Amino acid sequence: MKIAVIQMKPKLGNINYNANEILNFYKKSNADILLFPEMCLVGYLPKDALLSSKFLEKCHKKLEEIMKHINEKVCIISMPYLENEKLYNAVIVLQNQKIITCSFKTHLPNYDIFDEKRYFSSGKAGYFEFNGVKIGLPVCEDIWHSDVCNSLARQGVGIFLVANASPFYRGKIQERLTIVKQRYAENNIPIVYCNQVVCKDGIIYDGSSFCFDGENIIYAKSFEEDILEVEFKNGQITGNKSTITPNDEMLTYNALVFGLREYVKNSGFEKVIVGLSGGADSALVTTLAVKAFGAENVKTVLMPSKFTSKESIEGATQLVKNLGVEMQIISITKPLESFHKILEMSGIAAENIQARIRGNILMAISNEENAMVLTTGNKSEIAVGYCTIYGDMCGGYNPIKDIYKTQVFEIMKFINKMGIASIPERIILKEPSAELKENQKDSDSLPKYEILDAILFEFIENNKQPEELTTFDVEIVEKIWKLINTSEYKRFQSAPGTKISKRSFEPSEWRRNIV
Amino acid sequence: MKIAVIQMKPKLGNINYNANEILNFYKKSNADILLFPEMCLVGYLPKDALLSSKFLEKCHKKLEEIMKHINEKVCIISMPYLENEKLYNAVIVLQNQKIITCSFKTHLPNYDIFDEKRYFSSGKAGYFEFNGVKIGLPVCEDIWHSDVCNSLARQGVGIFLVANASPFYRGKIQERLTIVKQRYAENNIPIVYCNQVVCKDGIIYDGSSFCFDGENIIYAKSFEEDILEVEFKNGQITGNKSTITPNDEMLTYNALVFGLREYVKNSGFEKVIVGLSGGADSALVTTLAVKAFGAENVKTVLMPSKFTSKESIEGATQLVKNLGVEMQIISITKPLESFHKILEMSGIAAENIQARIRGNILMAISNEENAMVLTTGNKSEIAVGYCTIYGDMCGGYNPIKDIYKTQVFEIMKFINKMGIASIPERIILKEPSAELKENQKDSDSLPKYEILDAILFEFIENNKQPEELTTFDVEIVEKIWKLINTSEYKRFQSAPGTKISKRSFEPSEWRRNIV
Repeated sequence: MKIAVIQMKPKLGNINYNANEILNFYKKSNADILLFPEMCLVGYLPKDALLSSKFLEKCHKKLEEIMKHINEKVCIISMPYLENEKLYNAVIVLQNQKIITCSFKTHLPNYDIFDEKRYFSSGKAGYFEFNGVKIGLPVCEDIWHSDVCNSLARQGVGIFLVANASPFYRGKIQERLTIVKQRYAENNIPIVYCNQVVCKDGIIYDGSSFCFDGENIIYAKSFEEDILEVEFKNGQITGNKSTITPNDEMLTYNALVFGLREYVKNSGFEKVIVGLSGGADSALVTTLAVKAFGAENVKTVLMPSKFTSKESIEGATQLVKNLGVEMQIISITKPLESFHKILEMSGIAAENIQARIRGNILMAISNEENAMVLTTGNKSEIAVGYCTIYGDMCGGYNPIKDIYKTQVFEIMKFINKMGIASIPERIILKEPSAELKENQKDSDSLPKYEILDAILFEFIENNKQPEELTTFDVEIVEKIWKLINTSEYKRFQSAPGTKISKRSFEPSEWRRNIV
Repeated sequence: MKIAVIQMKPKLGNINYNANEILNFYKKSNADILLFPEMCLVGYLPKDALLSSKFLEKCHKKLEEIMKHINEKVCIISMPYLENEKLYNAVIVLQNQKIITCSFKTHLPNYDIFDEKRYFSSGKAGYFEFNGVKIGLPVCEDIWHSDVCNSLARQGVGIFLVANASPFYRGKIQERLTIVKQRYAENNIPIVYCNQVVCKDGIIYDGSSFCFDGENIIYAKSFEEDILEVEFKNGQITGNKSTITPNDEMLTYNALVFGLREYVKNSGFEKVIVGLSGGADSALVTTLAVKAFGAENVKTVLMPSKFTSKESIEGATQLVKNLGVEMQIISITKPLESFHKILEMSGIAAENIQARIRGNILMAISNEENAMVLTTGNKSEIAVGYCTIYGDMCGGYNPIKDIYKTQVFEIMKFINKMGIASIPERIILKEPSAELKENQKDSDSLPKYEILDAILFEFIENNKQPEELTTFDVEIVEKIWKLINTSEYKRFQSAPGTKISKRSFEPSEWRRNIV
């Protein structure tokens, strides 16, 4: 039998659009069975809309409409499904204008970014028969445990078709494969894995759908819509798509470009604005933006003060030349003077006002030209609060929010090495500085980034407590812990950004108290 | 037997502080049994710290320490408790240096602000015996269902002692009483209800602990630490605390003052700054701040432009005179000119820059004087995005974030009526305007607030979909729905504020997608 894995891009909450897309894919395909991703009818996940009975009613009505167009080709979609007053995360199998099976997700993830127990009841996975083969339908998380697949195997299932909404982070593609191989080892049953490809408020669902029959792995593309057509026969899956997983660095780079493009375009913007400082963060963001939107849709603004070094100006100038993007130079001297005339400011107030004037300028251009400001704080800065709220934190999206400072440099080197762009060496080599006062260096206030990032990684990614970090200087560990805790209020008001790590600062997976 | 209901104020995640507090209350009391609130050892709820095994280990060690100080007086505390690799939301009964009972919460709330299924396993409620009476220990949510109490009743329990962490909203005190009366009606067993009193990132736990024996209701105070000492004998509870529930308007006012005070003080600030516009929102916020911190700790700043009306200036001047607070007047004309010299700005850009200059001024004063800026956007504005991000949205806390515009006026009238303060009539009567361009009125862009708020209430509090709002003009409904959806990005970056309604915009209970 011919199976089409439809790695689609559903729009969140837009039932009409998604239903049309599903039917378009259906009409065009000549496969026997089409498999769509988890929650393809509503997108993963419309959150509290799922608490509205009217919304659920609309889903069921739309299912009725879709059904009318389904002939002998089997269509496997997924949606929130009400039965006996319980709401299930369901996979629905349609054929000949009818529902032939419903499979309900058993394991509801309620950790990391997931809150499925808020909305769904746990149900029972099902199967259907096609040409004498029983086709099992675990749903996403179900295959991360043994029980559901084992139970379907005992019922004589010959293949698993799995609808997923699986978020991306570094190493995730390998993790999925490992799990699928474990399930295969337990039951010797081939698995077809279909994932959606979207970026939802910074959380990327990368696609990377695949099939595994014990020997061959056949991959769909990552970060774009794709259809994987395979033949299933005598326990084997064959098809002619790529069988190579792309490398981790390239995946990270692609994820950053994809996340940025999707977020901005879905927000209704065509153009972006970046405030260039001459430093690494804004250089990387500008480079990513050029790759995401084209140089003609990126505008940079250099806003020097008397603390801006010659080095910074030269670096920024070289960068925009290399990338072919527009750079406007607007000195902040005059507005700064006007504020100093009406206000007493010293120390931190005098530093922050500079960042805030820059924020105002960027937002004014944004309002005037209808372009989104990208903010450029890396994960290390945002972790310890080394950034000015309403200043350099201004912006609709932060493409590097989940990238530690040391990673910023690694990614820039990778971009240069691969010939993706040419980021001036002087920017990569320059010592990090906020340039808000004379001869300021990040290292005046913070430990070296190598040490800082190693400590942050333990606190954030590994959820450690200070006393567990025994290989670092105790004083530094305590200082960083305190900085993380006291800068929660800044993160609370920070722009969303692309998730790349196992634990980003997105509120759904970074759940902390502000005070 | 003598029971002391310890309505305490735990500090989130501060195990040492909370343990000391618990032992201080214990030493001072001459009751037979002390009942503390839910999660009193860690505060409700330290969120992802509960995922750290080190943190849980610290909790268990601290329990051992507390135990050593417990004699024949029974001490009932609550904490996260690990047993057989499962984590429970537990009530622990201590006596004579020993644990005599553990009661585990059965019903884990996972709706509204609650995410307990992320952290806890469901367990079984227990009881202990004291002087021949079996004392049942349902935990918080358990009494909102029948089964746990019924099961304990069948085991011969004579009284329920219930540890709670119950968030406040309008009408909640009455709801709790209704539920407790239902449980009483089912089993004829008296109930002692102990709640904590804190404000956690805008969510208020109001205390208002109480006892009910089928006839008498005895209340502790609302919004302050309190000990309720009662005598339980022959199925009756007696004590000499207030038996009257305060009225709803007064509770709302008190909640606003309490929430503001707690948030700011717990953030480490003594003083606050408010940007005065001469309009209703900033007038109410200033009044609340004076009540929370005293006039000497409140600074107001009036930042007129050429669009500021004489009426606004006079209103603000009268207000600060009535309240006895300092008002600094700083014209934004000069900085505004300096921005217009370096940037092309018209329309929305020219409007927003004014709000952003005001934001800069307030933040500069904040940095210079170490005082927290209060932001003053009401719920109606924030719902539809009628506010400037990084402009009037600047600030560490928003005391009226959950107050609709129509309620802003109601509360001001209440404050005047009760003689709490004297807010000038001209401010209450003035037509709402952002004053960012000539003759601007809120009603140019929005429907009348009476209509707007009624529609918003359906969308927000009742989670309705547009087609369900059949009694309003369809076009207006669609417009408001669209505004709510497209301004999610502003709310995402907005300051926290006090929850007053059943559904506020706090991210834990307003779960939506930005794009």
